[in-house]
Amino acid sequence: MSPAPPGVAIGIDVGGTKILGLLVGDGEEIVARAQVPTPHPEVPDLGSALADAIARLVGVIDDEVGSLAPVGIGVPGLVEGSSTLVFGPHLQSADRADLLSLLAVPLAGRAKLVANDADLAVLAEHRAGAAVGHDEVLLVTLGTGIGGGLISGGSPMRGAGFAGEVGHMVLDVNGPWCPCGSRGCWERFASGSGLGRIAREAALADRLSSVVASVGGDPEAVRGEDVTSAARAGDPEALVIFDEVGWWLARGLANLISILDPTCVIVGGGMAETAELLLAPAQRHLHALTEAAHVRVPLTLTSAHFGSDAGAVGAALAARDAS
Amino acid sequence: MSPAPPGVAIGIDVGGTKILGLLVGDGEEIVARAQVPTPHPEVPDLGSALADAIARLVGVIDDEVGSLAPVGIGVPGLVEGSSTLVFGPHLQSADRADLLSLLAVPLAGRAKLVANDADLAVLAEHRAGAAVGHDEVLLVTLGTGIGGGLISGGSPMRGAGFAGEVGHMVLDVNGPWCPCGSRGCWERFASGSGLGRIAREAALADRLSSVVASVGGDPEAVRGEDVTSAARAGDPEALVIFDEVGWWLARGLANLISILDPTCVIVGGGMAETAELLLAPAQRHLHALTEAAHVRVPLTLTSAHFGSDAGAVGAALAARDAS
Repeated sequence: MSPAPPGVAIGIDVGGTKILGLLVGDGEEIVARAQVPTPHPEVPDLGSALADAIARLVGVIDDEVGSLAPVGIGVPGLVEGSSTLVFGPHLQSADRADLLSLLAVPLAGRAKLVANDADLAVLAEHRAGAAVGHDEVLLVTLGTGIGGGLISGGSPMRGAGFAGEVGHMVLDVNGPWCPCGSRGCWERFASGSGLGRIAREAALADRLSSVVASVGGDPEAVRGEDVTSAARAGDPEALVIFDEVGWWLARGLANLISILDPTCVIVGGGMAETAELLLAPAQRHLHALTEAAHVRVPLTLTSAHFGSDAGAVGAALAARDAS
Repeated sequence: MSPAPPGVAIGIDVGGTKILGLLVGDGEEIVARAQVPTPHPEVPDLGSALADAIARLVGVIDDEVGSLAPVGIGVPGLVEGSSTLVFGPHLQSADRADLLSLLAVPLAGRAKLVANDADLAVLAEHRAGAAVGHDEVLLVTLGTGIGGGLISGGSPMRGAGFAGEVGHMVLDVNGPWCPCGSRGCWERFASGSGLGRIAREAALADRLSSVVASVGGDPEAVRGEDVTSAARAGDPEALVIFDEVGWWLARGLANLISILDPTCVIVGGGMAETAELLLAPAQRHLHALTEAAHVRVPLTLTSAHFGSDAGAVGAALAARDAS
């Protein structure tokens, strides 16, 4: 196969359940798409299993387009040296895996970098999506957990390397325990798993009768997807759940607005697919919860232009930059 | 009087109870010092009253040193255009006061800028204090409330203008009400007023017997200063209060470390005077509360080199820069 034309790159986004691969063209358009399941977090040698799955996914895209493009990889966790996943809350047994080295031979030098998924998503949105023209940007990825990517002064803001880990901001010191060891982290409330948890609590309290009936009568069987479908169909009890999750989203964003003062806040990740249900209540609550809202520049709160593809698009753009 | 030599400047720091003025020399040494009481927040036309008090304070310093230096002014609130206090939580009736214009005539053009007090404090610490050599710095001022100043990539990080307002980060959505309208803001717990509130709660629960006795037996009369004196004398019950406030300080810092990932965290403001009581418990709790502490660069947590003078020193340095 021939090398890909200049400006064309493959972006990989490792998620909790699937790994997404996109071939992105030189106008940031998505040319090809494929996915494979994420290896189970408890397989032996998860780092190698992730690298194998990524190499297989790249091979699928190569075969489809008939050329070999550079590859960028986003992962949900803390990354060191653009190569090593040092800490992945949902992929803990891959901690310290040097994915770039593991992929060097299988991808014949085409793997250019590994980076935090939300850092890549904000790169994509800032360069070609919903944050074009903004110098102060906060992107939150709402998926299994919550990640964050920051732009400040028009450039990526990473602190000593790991800035933007907003999901473990504690909002309720007496709240539900988080696997991280703290109580009441933001991602216990405003993520995809938070939606499911809040919905099951409501179901057990008999506040989601139609949804419970739709899953066969067991309140414990209610999942986020069930509430989402019901809310889309106009079920008032399901809409109350989205109002509650929207309040939690706004509460966390209000904290981050006090701390970071962005002009543009973007919601990405899997939950971006429910933006039409989530962002209206979040916006409604946000003004009341934001300190000194009346003196601030009005904020743009919007879903990611690239939706849940933003991380993979950013991975491709970063690979292009590094080529 | 003659103009001051180059590099010499006056820094003013408007606090909740007093206004501090310092003459700072070209080696960042403090040459002269004076203070006046802060006008009561409910006086008519607080903006003009503040300007009058500042002009009087500058006059005292002028008379003492016999020369006229440029002046910088720090205020506890949100500042626009280096001149206007647009929102001061503890000085609300001065909102929208253009202090720079109000001081133009009384100070004959020597007033160079108005800025947020914590932004000035972090400038002083970064340039000549405890954060020299660090590119990623968080400074928190613990006083009546909690303010914050940020350095990222070696430069001030202000977002759209108001970044670093860390005191109204909510940590306990069901916690005590804050005058800002939210519940459980960080400054309800880890500030000077938080120390007093937590101490009075402990006193009412009969957990501060010696301190209550020392103030005549009324638990409601206990102030932060009383607990501080008792803790310095080794009173075990008072030390437990500092452990509790230290936990809250660490809890908020752990959130900010996740979000900002600084390499250096500095505690300033009035409570910096109790650093020897507060920072040891905060440091002890911080490691356990920080997400992924084991993969991060070890953090420097320290009190401000300039102590509670940091804001005024920074105001002088900023005035020097602007002259």
